[in-house]
Amino acid sequence: MKAVGFKTSLPLSSPNSFIDFETDKPAPKGHELLVKINAIAVNPVDYKIRQNAAKDTELPSPKIIGWDACGVVEAIGNEVSLFKVGDKVYYAGDINKPGCNAEYQVIDERIVGRKPKQLSDEEAAAMPLTALTAWEILFDRIRISAEKDKGKTLLIIAGAGGVGSIAIQLAKKIAGLKVIATASRPETIEWCKKMGADVVVNHKNLVDEVRNAGFQHIDFIVDFVDTNSYWDDMAELIRPQGHIASITGSAAPVALNKLKTKSASFSWEFMYTRSTFQTEDMIEQHHILNKVADLIDEGVIVHTLTQTLNGLSAETLKKAHEQLESGTTIGKLAIKY
Amino acid sequence: MKAVGFKTSLPLSSPNSFIDFETDKPAPKGHELLVKINAIAVNPVDYKIRQNAAKDTELPSPKIIGWDACGVVEAIGNEVSLFKVGDKVYYAGDINKPGCNAEYQVIDERIVGRKPKQLSDEEAAAMPLTALTAWEILFDRIRISAEKDKGKTLLIIAGAGGVGSIAIQLAKKIAGLKVIATASRPETIEWCKKMGADVVVNHKNLVDEVRNAGFQHIDFIVDFVDTNSYWDDMAELIRPQGHIASITGSAAPVALNKLKTKSASFSWEFMYTRSTFQTEDMIEQHHILNKVADLIDEGVIVHTLTQTLNGLSAETLKKAHEQLESGTTIGKLAIKY
Repeated sequence: MKAVGFKTSLPLSSPNSFIDFETDKPAPKGHELLVKINAIAVNPVDYKIRQNAAKDTELPSPKIIGWDACGVVEAIGNEVSLFKVGDKVYYAGDINKPGCNAEYQVIDERIVGRKPKQLSDEEAAAMPLTALTAWEILFDRIRISAEKDKGKTLLIIAGAGGVGSIAIQLAKKIAGLKVIATASRPETIEWCKKMGADVVVNHKNLVDEVRNAGFQHIDFIVDFVDTNSYWDDMAELIRPQGHIASITGSAAPVALNKLKTKSASFSWEFMYTRSTFQTEDMIEQHHILNKVADLIDEGVIVHTLTQTLNGLSAETLKKAHEQLESGTTIGKLAIKY
Repeated sequence: MKAVGFKTSLPLSSPNSFIDFETDKPAPKGHELLVKINAIAVNPVDYKIRQNAAKDTELPSPKIIGWDACGVVEAIGNEVSLFKVGDKVYYAGDINKPGCNAEYQVIDERIVGRKPKQLSDEEAAAMPLTALTAWEILFDRIRISAEKDKGKTLLIIAGAGGVGSIAIQLAKKIAGLKVIATASRPETIEWCKKMGADVVVNHKNLVDEVRNAGFQHIDFIVDFVDTNSYWDDMAELIRPQGHIASITGSAAPVALNKLKTKSASFSWEFMYTRSTFQTEDMIEQHHILNKVADLIDEGVIVHTLTQTLNGLSAETLKKAHEQLESGTTIGKLAIKY
């Protein structure tokens, strides 16, 4: 099968930052599905791995990355019970296994959902990673309850990005929260409002911006930019007994003590935790993806695709990574095979 | 009225580390009760405040500390609705207001509970601060659910201390958890088992101790000693998607990133958050204290008093603080007036 990968971590300006190559079509075992991929999407995690996974070294064979795909089940392992050959599926995959920048991929059925019927392949491919991340951070980490937390406030740092775009929708439509999102450009501000944000503020001077918008304290804060940079602001803004969560990691140690007097909580969301540790509740990702598909098909939430490139090739992947590395992408970018 | 306090933070060896003095009996306003105190208990927070609240300075009048008391309502403010004159009550108070090392105290009714009927005054005085702390850390911060979390594992670092002693009981009896507690001396190990711990391990080489006891990962960890010292061990032991909580503060910044791959959560519990910020749910502490009184009266949980001193005086308070500063106290120490 055709695939795209890299043997060495290189800047996109290098001709070998991505390479086209041929490799064997994988065979599904146990709970695995073999999926013929029709479209993929790219995410910041892709270029972070491309930039770091093979620094100052050359891998023996190209590494295939990419963790957002939509396709059709072509074969199944002997323990598969959730899908059958011919099913249309979408999924974000497992970061410890070969990715979706290829014609085919094997993938554990417990982290795969049925493709939303109302979406094209590329629209569907744009959703899994961000929808899983947003769902998990809101409902599994912070454990926001539609029943108990309706009307509470949520601050989303980086509302117009991939995760922000779906987090705004889930917070509004599913949890009934009042959503304050950050964005700074006219087009990102407009996008956040389109996704459903009640208030959009600038991320610079965040505390003042939020206070000027009429909010002294915020019940829940999610950070999609950088934990270290926003720590002091988040500690200042969080309501006593409130909950902060982030997906970004923190390179430097954190002044955790700033949350103490408020008895505040902090959670990490790493969308690959369940697959990495093969947790007992790994199948939750199957359920989440199916719920998201239902919500899309019912018209409750909308896809977040804004740009589509065509064709599986090193050249297309380079263009896609270039766009993501710019840090200005609104919503999601997909590649249609 | 008679009271005990200090004007300067001094070591207990100094004659003025505590002083006996007379002051006006306070008058209750609004939601306040005037309580005639029959017994108090001491907690580590007491000596931390005595050691730090008036460093290198002399306060104009003595500061009254102490936040665990049992007594009788003698008068009520005009908005009081939960109690009447003559009611026997117990409470942990508000750290921003004068404490209970005095004959009388005014206290907001929303953070007061009915005294457990089965306990003596000193036994009852031993319970509020630790019971509120343990209840809040388990059920309000980590949000352990008796329904969903039964049979999961909880590691309690410092099982034999005041908070540990009641946390073991609540975790076992109310939440149905499997409790692993740390203790290192024969008498503290025995005490933890008496409180209901399933397994007792040494806090030294904590990771090895817990693993040797048969637990690879722990669902919930509560730290009652020092967040910085145990951070690496807790990060290693916590189960993916698990939850760590602490009451101790962290002087140094923390490598929060160590929890990221596991999508783990961290919460602070500060028992004075609700009263400090006058949160809308402040009355929860009234409900918690009443629930704990019910559990004690029904014989589900037992008091944790192990030592009683007699008489409200600077001399008695010095003895009590001396015992607490030793760091070897098992359960709680009370003073009967």
